[in-house]
Amino acid sequence: MEFSEWYSDILEKAGIYDLRYPIKGCGVYLPYGFKIRRYSFEILRKLLDETGHDETLFPMLIPENLLAKEGEHIKGFEDEVFWVTHGGKTPLEVKLALRPTSETTMYYMMKQWIKVHTDLPLKLYQVVNTFRYETKHTRPLIRLREIMSFKEAHTAHATKKECDAQIEEALTLYKAFFDEIGVPYVISKRPEWDKFPGADYTMAFDTIYPDGKTMQIGTVHNLGQNFAKTFELEFETPDGEKDFVYQTCYGISDRAIASLISVHGDEKGLVIPVDVAPIQIVLIPLLFKGKEEIVMDKIKELNKTLKSEFRVHLDDRDIRPGRKYNDWELKGVPLRIELGPRDIENGHALIVRRDTGEKITVEYSNILEEVEKIVSMYKDNLKIKAEEKIKSFITAVDFESDVNALSEKVKAELLENKGIILIPFDESIYNEKFEELIDASVLGLTTYEGKEYISVARTY
Amino acid sequence: MEFSEWYSDILEKAGIYDLRYPIKGCGVYLPYGFKIRRYSFEILRKLLDETGHDETLFPMLIPENLLAKEGEHIKGFEDEVFWVTHGGKTPLEVKLALRPTSETTMYYMMKQWIKVHTDLPLKLYQVVNTFRYETKHTRPLIRLREIMSFKEAHTAHATKKECDAQIEEALTLYKAFFDEIGVPYVISKRPEWDKFPGADYTMAFDTIYPDGKTMQIGTVHNLGQNFAKTFELEFETPDGEKDFVYQTCYGISDRAIASLISVHGDEKGLVIPVDVAPIQIVLIPLLFKGKEEIVMDKIKELNKTLKSEFRVHLDDRDIRPGRKYNDWELKGVPLRIELGPRDIENGHALIVRRDTGEKITVEYSNILEEVEKIVSMYKDNLKIKAEEKIKSFITAVDFESDVNALSEKVKAELLENKGIILIPFDESIYNEKFEELIDASVLGLTTYEGKEYISVARTY
Repeated sequence: MEFSEWYSDILEKAGIYDLRYPIKGCGVYLPYGFKIRRYSFEILRKLLDETGHDETLFPMLIPENLLAKEGEHIKGFEDEVFWVTHGGKTPLEVKLALRPTSETTMYYMMKQWIKVHTDLPLKLYQVVNTFRYETKHTRPLIRLREIMSFKEAHTAHATKKECDAQIEEALTLYKAFFDEIGVPYVISKRPEWDKFPGADYTMAFDTIYPDGKTMQIGTVHNLGQNFAKTFELEFETPDGEKDFVYQTCYGISDRAIASLISVHGDEKGLVIPVDVAPIQIVLIPLLFKGKEEIVMDKIKELNKTLKSEFRVHLDDRDIRPGRKYNDWELKGVPLRIELGPRDIENGHALIVRRDTGEKITVEYSNILEEVEKIVSMYKDNLKIKAEEKIKSFITAVDFESDVNALSEKVKAELLENKGIILIPFDESIYNEKFEELIDASVLGLTTYEGKEYISVARTY
Repeated sequence: MEFSEWYSDILEKAGIYDLRYPIKGCGVYLPYGFKIRRYSFEILRKLLDETGHDETLFPMLIPENLLAKEGEHIKGFEDEVFWVTHGGKTPLEVKLALRPTSETTMYYMMKQWIKVHTDLPLKLYQVVNTFRYETKHTRPLIRLREIMSFKEAHTAHATKKECDAQIEEALTLYKAFFDEIGVPYVISKRPEWDKFPGADYTMAFDTIYPDGKTMQIGTVHNLGQNFAKTFELEFETPDGEKDFVYQTCYGISDRAIASLISVHGDEKGLVIPVDVAPIQIVLIPLLFKGKEEIVMDKIKELNKTLKSEFRVHLDDRDIRPGRKYNDWELKGVPLRIELGPRDIENGHALIVRRDTGEKITVEYSNILEEVEKIVSMYKDNLKIKAEEKIKSFITAVDFESDVNALSEKVKAELLENKGIILIPFDESIYNEKFEELIDASVLGLTTYEGKEYISVARTY
């Protein structure tokens, strides 16, 4: 099955996201999908909290004059902003934008809070909905008009050095996040023509989808003093001088969820990383006439034992076990444990891994430890498989000084191997014109296995 | 200090909410305030999850034709809805409302999901921002144009009986929530003229603020089959017949946070209930020359011990202890522990309660247990004090058949005692005209100490 068809299909069948809402690019996180979102963003919150970021909540509406304050920034968004013009039947005096992102909102408020160097650093974040009037083809959780979950962090610092260090912290933090939710990535410094409007430079995380196209899943921006000058974010330095703050911002959205679904799934359905799985283990009793009670008693005992450490579901529906297997494989539950009268007689239980399909007979008496071991192998395997998959999609080519020959070679590789093509850095091709020649995007500058490349790809 | 002045003042000084945003009724949850919100809504989520509610996330925008579908419902909101009319520079074909609440959004989707009785009950909730174009005076966290945190639950059932039982479950759940966050309440069945637009009837939780005015802090609506008929929420019953579902919805907002701040605070600042306190215990070292290291070592050890069970903050700023006391009293931290060289010599520590100001010397060796005991007393005391306060604001009067004499009496009591006045139920005065006579609101029918009353009050 073609990837994009598989993707739409699985969102519906596994109960992740329903797109049958009557506004293009707006849909519903269903209970199972929402739980994956909740566990994923809990991991992200924990990483942010531990590194001294404070969670906050800023207004969703932005007055037109405030949004327009940073000229370059608004130019990046003006065709994509939804405008509120009326309250009830009354026309508003000032049009209000639905936030496309919150730089202008937050920096207006930071002006009230930052007076002196001891007010710094300021490290804030929020998880909110944001809006883009997308005219392109929308895709559930990937390109939405209402981005339902946008974690945006915004920091302000007294020195350029601290600001640059914050970029490193953000990159480290995002690496840890994507590692934990099992999404492999390539990091690039975006080219000038594709950086965030108003930033000095943009670092971006891309992953590669099964169809070989790259997906931007996280961005980290060094804003320098650009916004600070516009929003007059001046402070008193330890020497009693005045200076503008240095700023960074970085964001992660629903695409994190879309990606953990996309990179691990297979023809049977989802394969969910353990830490974000709504159900980590499903228990299935094998009932035979006259033995129902023995099995149910034992499996309830097992449920209780495993619940101390895992999110467990006991499937006691009155349907055939085979149908249950299919249901839970579709939903990507990491481990299934089957228990029947024969197993009980032998003091065994059968564990089936969703990632490999492997069946493992374990001693019942020792089951918690056995499950822990298998869970740990499952985690490692998902990580390794995802890394292998992304590596198989990365191709390095040699540089050629004839730009036409080079672009033909790149085009051929893009057709053959898809994914990311790495070209040894050369200034002569680092421009938008090269994008036209290869009919693909320049992701930017990428350090890969110790070497510096220009990375290009077909992107989502 | 007058209450409303105290309230605005404390929001700013304690770092709860900043209203200096350039849109009326829109402000910022600051880090300390956001933590109170986070802990409060975590308690609410837990209660909902435990009773089989599934968390979801629905779109924020509602097409005009969808919102207008339920005539009575839209009439209740049409003057208060913000309208999006443009995407970029393009006028939209259909105007989009910012959700004032999500009945129409959710029930449109429920139509896709409900086919047969086994699809029921459906118990969903979400925590989202909602919008009202308030023309009245706005108040931070109380009357906002962007309600930043609205927990709305929506359920659908196969029978009237199950639906009625769901109302009971919702009431029980909300009682548990307000008990846990320490906000006392009176429950009333709202009069016909003040029920939720489109509902059969509305049950409401009101608390009483220090100025004697009541604040609606939670509502539970029995929608019967009204919305179901509009949204064609038909299903197949076990007998193979067709029927419409029965529905309920219930909501709690930022007012829960406003209320827990308002009912417990005093002239020194906040008094925060333990379970939602961002910092539950603050540690303050008393440093004397030459003894700094002994004290700091010991207090770090104490920090580690207490962190196993509580949210602790060690205040090691280089300022006088007295200033620290004031700061943390303002922020409402439940317990302060002071530790100096003399205490260490004696094997003691001094615990100071925020609620009573009481100072308690405890054995250092036994400190975790001692703290647990004091925390438990603190909780009980807050609950008792809040209950007493609300009781002192409730006055029952005798019925008088002369409506003018009765209304004069009620007006006098409202002036004298403020709060809620309870009048023995009599149909003749249960109407909007009586509201005019007493120049106050009828909250509804209230059962108080086993008797049925009409309750009236000046409301926020």
